[in-house]
Amino acid sequence: MARQSLQPARDPADYAFTHRLRTRFAETDAMGIIHHAAYLPYLEEARVEYLRAIGHPYDSVRAGDSAAGGDGDGGRDFAVLEVSVQYRRPLHFDDEVDVSLVIGAVTGATFQIAYLLSVGGEARATAVTVHGCVDGRGRPARMPAWVRELGEA
Amino acid sequence: MARQSLQPARDPADYAFTHRLRTRFAETDAMGIIHHAAYLPYLEEARVEYLRAIGHPYDSVRAGDSAAGGDGDGGRDFAVLEVSVQYRRPLHFDDEVDVSLVIGAVTGATFQIAYLLSVGGEARATAVTVHGCVDGRGRPARMPAWVRELGEA
Amino acid sequence: MARQSLQPARDPADYAFTHRLRTRFAETDAMGIIHHAAYLPYLEEARVEYLRAIGHPYDSVRAGDSAAGGDGDGGRDFAVLEVSVQYRRPLHFDDEVDVSLVIGAVTGATFQIAYLLSVGGEARATAVTVHGCVDGRGRPARMPAWVRELGEA
Amino acid sequence: MARQSLQPARDPADYAFTHRLRTRFAETDAMGIIHHAAYLPYLEEARVEYLRAIGHPYDSVRAGDSAAGGDGDGGRDFAVLEVSVQYRRPLHFDDEVDVSLVIGAVTGATFQIAYLLSVGGEARATAVTVHGCVDGRGRPARMPAWVRELGEA
Repeated sequence: MARQSLQPARDPADYAFTHRLRTRFAETDAMGIIHHAAYLPYLEEARVEYLRAIGHPYDSVRAGDSAAGGDGDGGRDFAVLEVSVQYRRPLHFDDEVDVSLVIGAVTGATFQIAYLLSVGGEARATAVTVHGCVDGRGRPARMPAWVRELGEA
Repeated sequence: MARQSLQPARDPADYAFTHRLRTRFAETDAMGIIHHAAYLPYLEEARVEYLRAIGHPYDSVRAGDSAAGGDGDGGRDFAVLEVSVQYRRPLHFDDEVDVSLVIGAVTGATFQIAYLLSVGGEARATAVTVHGCVDGRGRPARMPAWVRELGEA
Repeated sequence: MARQSLQPARDPADYAFTHRLRTRFAETDAMGIIHHAAYLPYLEEARVEYLRAIGHPYDSVRAGDSAAGGDGDGGRDFAVLEVSVQYRRPLHFDDEVDVSLVIGAVTGATFQIAYLLSVGGEARATAVTVHGCVDGRGRPARMPAWVRELGEA
Repeated sequence: MARQSLQPARDPADYAFTHRLRTRFAETDAMGIIHHAAYLPYLEEARVEYLRAIGHPYDSVRAGDSAAGGDGDGGRDFAVLEVSVQYRRPLHFDDEVDVSLVIGAVTGATFQIAYLLSVGGEARATAVTVHGCVDGRGRPARMPAWVRELGEA
């Protein structure tokens, strides 16, 4: 089992990419804050926008489009093997959240992403996800070359 | 497009089946009540338990197991074509909710389900869903005979 | 109980406002499409953006800020009394969805909103929500004048 | 910031309590498995059932009922400060999941819970949550005595 090794920085300048999103009322809870489970889709949405920004849209990766770096045998999914979130200060309804991320710890089988969630420059949460590469049936599969190259950058 | 025609009754005795579930804290919102979108998975959970109770577990229907009434060509999904909910009184965290349902208006292509959500015998919401039968690729497919027979009961 | 009376048009030109959002992978289901329950937060997100666009941000309405049309006694929520969705064609992961809406049927106690969800100009779903005005404790409250005026426009 | 220190065991016998739940179709994703974000509400549901089982229902804790160990000044929430999940094997639609948990690492300000999610005795995921005690306005508050005593057991 992969173990997260990244330490998310609290300075946005240490991240490669930032995606801004707005919290939804549906994501609040009876404590009047954004429910802690809602953060995981935020991380995912930022990953998807990052993949698009670097020329590998996730739906193309999933479909196995060669243009997106697939190898034509049914596509790839980046399964989530592990997730860890530290909630530092709450998010509230209608907050504009900057989700910054950077890829690291790329191996032949897994890669990790570190995240910083901030509002107006103030850190609200940090997170790490660990991903493995699987084929359309969920079986471990070879990591695309462009992912390995991201880790070398 | 199918149009809902059922009028959900407010007397539990008018329903064929009741499933009890408990609301989750994750389903509350900043108004301190269960968010209105959370009701749709409640209806779905009750449908799934109803199918199990009458001998047609939904995962078997989806897999096309002949024992569950599939026809072995890849399974069936009961796609949601329409949903309507009337919220009468709020649900709160930790409420035990009785979701009662009854099937009606079965045609060759669609069927409808009426629902009553109650807590301790008090009506909280009523709902109707309209379903079509599709195959594993989402294309319209023949309704299983056992569904048509439910409408004749 | 209010009953929806609006008939959602399928021509975007018949709507007052359009908000574009992108579907999330977390909102897909095992049928490979966006789960039907995910549409309700889409409608809500569009409502929130509409209120912001017309100068009544929902968090200010909820806080009772007089600048946003509150009356300083603890704020207002627009509770959902009823929702109805017709699913015409599925949404998929990564679709850019235009959620168009228009307010209608405003009374002293309730108002209704009609919605059209489309992708690239193609209708995917229509919906209606019915709302009542409540105070911070969920009790029926006077509708702000600016809402009543929207219905007269 | 608290840091998780518990190491979740993979033997159910090492846990104090087990809650069984069933996955929902709404929680699946387009990979055909339960979406990773859905696990957090599973952990929460198990926590809530555990608190009920030991005589401290969470709604009473939140309301500040003295019978439940509150101190009458508006209640307590167990805010989530940190969460970590390791996904070992996927969960699927309709799985019956045993969520086992045990409290540990109780201090004056925080406590931790370790979890094992298993299906038919097979480990599917492990997790740790770190909680702080807050009052009804989200401010840090004194940990109830009964929580501190749990850590001594």
